[in-house]
Amino acid sequence: MENIGELEKQIAELKTQMAGFNATITENKLSMIVFSGDLDKALAAFIIGTGAVAMGMDVVMFFTFWGIPMLRASDKAAKNKDIMSKMFGWMLPKGASKLKLSNMNMGGAGTAMMKGLMKKKNVASLDQMIELAANLEVKIYVCEMSMNLMGFTREEMIDYPGLTYCGVAKFLEEAMNSKVQLFL
Amino acid sequence: MENIGELEKQIAELKTQMAGFNATITENKLSMIVFSGDLDKALAAFIIGTGAVAMGMDVVMFFTFWGIPMLRASDKAAKNKDIMSKMFGWMLPKGASKLKLSNMNMGGAGTAMMKGLMKKKNVASLDQMIELAANLEVKIYVCEMSMNLMGFTREEMIDYPGLTYCGVAKFLEEAMNSKVQLFL
Amino acid sequence: MENIGELEKQIAELKTQMAGFNATITENKLSMIVFSGDLDKALAAFIIGTGAVAMGMDVVMFFTFWGIPMLRASDKAAKNKDIMSKMFGWMLPKGASKLKLSNMNMGGAGTAMMKGLMKKKNVASLDQMIELAANLEVKIYVCEMSMNLMGFTREEMIDYPGLTYCGVAKFLEEAMNSKVQLFL
Repeated sequence: MENIGELEKQIAELKTQMAGFNATITENKLSMIVFSGDLDKALAAFIIGTGAVAMGMDVVMFFTFWGIPMLRASDKAAKNKDIMSKMFGWMLPKGASKLKLSNMNMGGAGTAMMKGLMKKKNVASLDQMIELAANLEVKIYVCEMSMNLMGFTREEMIDYPGLTYCGVAKFLEEAMNSKVQLFL
Repeated sequence: MENIGELEKQIAELKTQMAGFNATITENKLSMIVFSGDLDKALAAFIIGTGAVAMGMDVVMFFTFWGIPMLRASDKAAKNKDIMSKMFGWMLPKGASKLKLSNMNMGGAGTAMMKGLMKKKNVASLDQMIELAANLEVKIYVCEMSMNLMGFTREEMIDYPGLTYCGVAKFLEEAMNSKVQLFL
Repeated sequence: MENIGELEKQIAELKTQMAGFNATITENKLSMIVFSGDLDKALAAFIIGTGAVAMGMDVVMFFTFWGIPMLRASDKAAKNKDIMSKMFGWMLPKGASKLKLSNMNMGGAGTAMMKGLMKKKNVASLDQMIELAANLEVKIYVCEMSMNLMGFTREEMIDYPGLTYCGVAKFLEEAMNSKVQLFL
């Protein structure tokens, strides 16, 4: 009976340790902040995101600052914008097909060349990748604070299943429980 | 009694596994490298950092390369600098209020516009965010190697509680035990 | 005997929980995506990578997009390239010694100044850091998709022990099991 008492003590200890582990457990998830509005980084973001789904991971992409304009729908417009919001609207790309390379853009020639190459070598375009991401149930979060700052509105954004408008706290909640986090 | 022997074996096995887990445990911490000296990324860094504290995380920000000049105090100067160090001093922003946008800076007009917008929409300025970070006990580490390379000295830096000068090893030690790591 | 039955139940429960933990275990590894082709970020990447090895971590660096040209050997050339591939070859840096700063490049003067400073202050050059990384058994992966897109070939790349050509899936597999992940 002494033996049993000893075992009970050891089991209780294991349970306590186990409870500690529970707080550190992560899900098989990848969380990404898409801060950049460059075509090359946007492509990288979606290649990583869709690739991670293919490997069985859940994926959350949080779009903020320059990353937001790529989610604008090319065929939508918002009414009653103030002058500042209109300026941001004119100056920033209207949708994924308008992004430029961060490097070798050469007044648009480099970007056109890269797009041509991608087509020729059967690499999906950014628009196609966003569609694929939707099919793969990649979650897209939009940073409401930076959207408001730039004067963009929800009615201008693409139709994307489950698109969520939120703050950084919501993203951090996901990131905390993710195996992989990246800032692009 | 056979039963008890079997239980003892199973408990011993669990303990061994548990010891293995101990090495992989992480703290509820976010570690960030702030490499960029762009206003937009600096804002993102402090929004993420202070947001993470609000969610109960410890936060460590490691400033390196172009990220260092934003920590210069606008009203301090170092003496006896060599010509190279002086050049870096002149060319790089002297403090957080001098940073520029990475995009749409337009000779300063875009940056001024963004700052005006932030004020109007009640978003804290970078200076205010650094103050908030100090109050929230966000830890700031400064990469000593890149500080020395650029010729900046400790006497030029802002007063920030617990500001630490260190190397990448110290940062990695924190990052290894963090739930979230980001490079900005 | 009642007691023993109870203990058996508790041990079984612990085992189930343990199995769940197994799926979340990470290795003492750092995985990095090197997307940028800027000298400053490349230096940061190798300082972090070699520093992490010094702290006992395994390190994987996945080179993609603009990060690939720094792995070109300065003394190798590929034959029979099409015109597009030749253009990328001409326009992008041929090897680590040709990278430029992302900031303060000033037509090359800033980059030269930084290299001079590094030498003077005994900071290893990028070429030396790559050599050190090889000695420390940092694993280098090259993104085959972007390499093909830009028209680079394996015969042009540096001799690096164990250099691996692969896709994003292979990288994600490493990242999933890593304590630290970074995107540069």
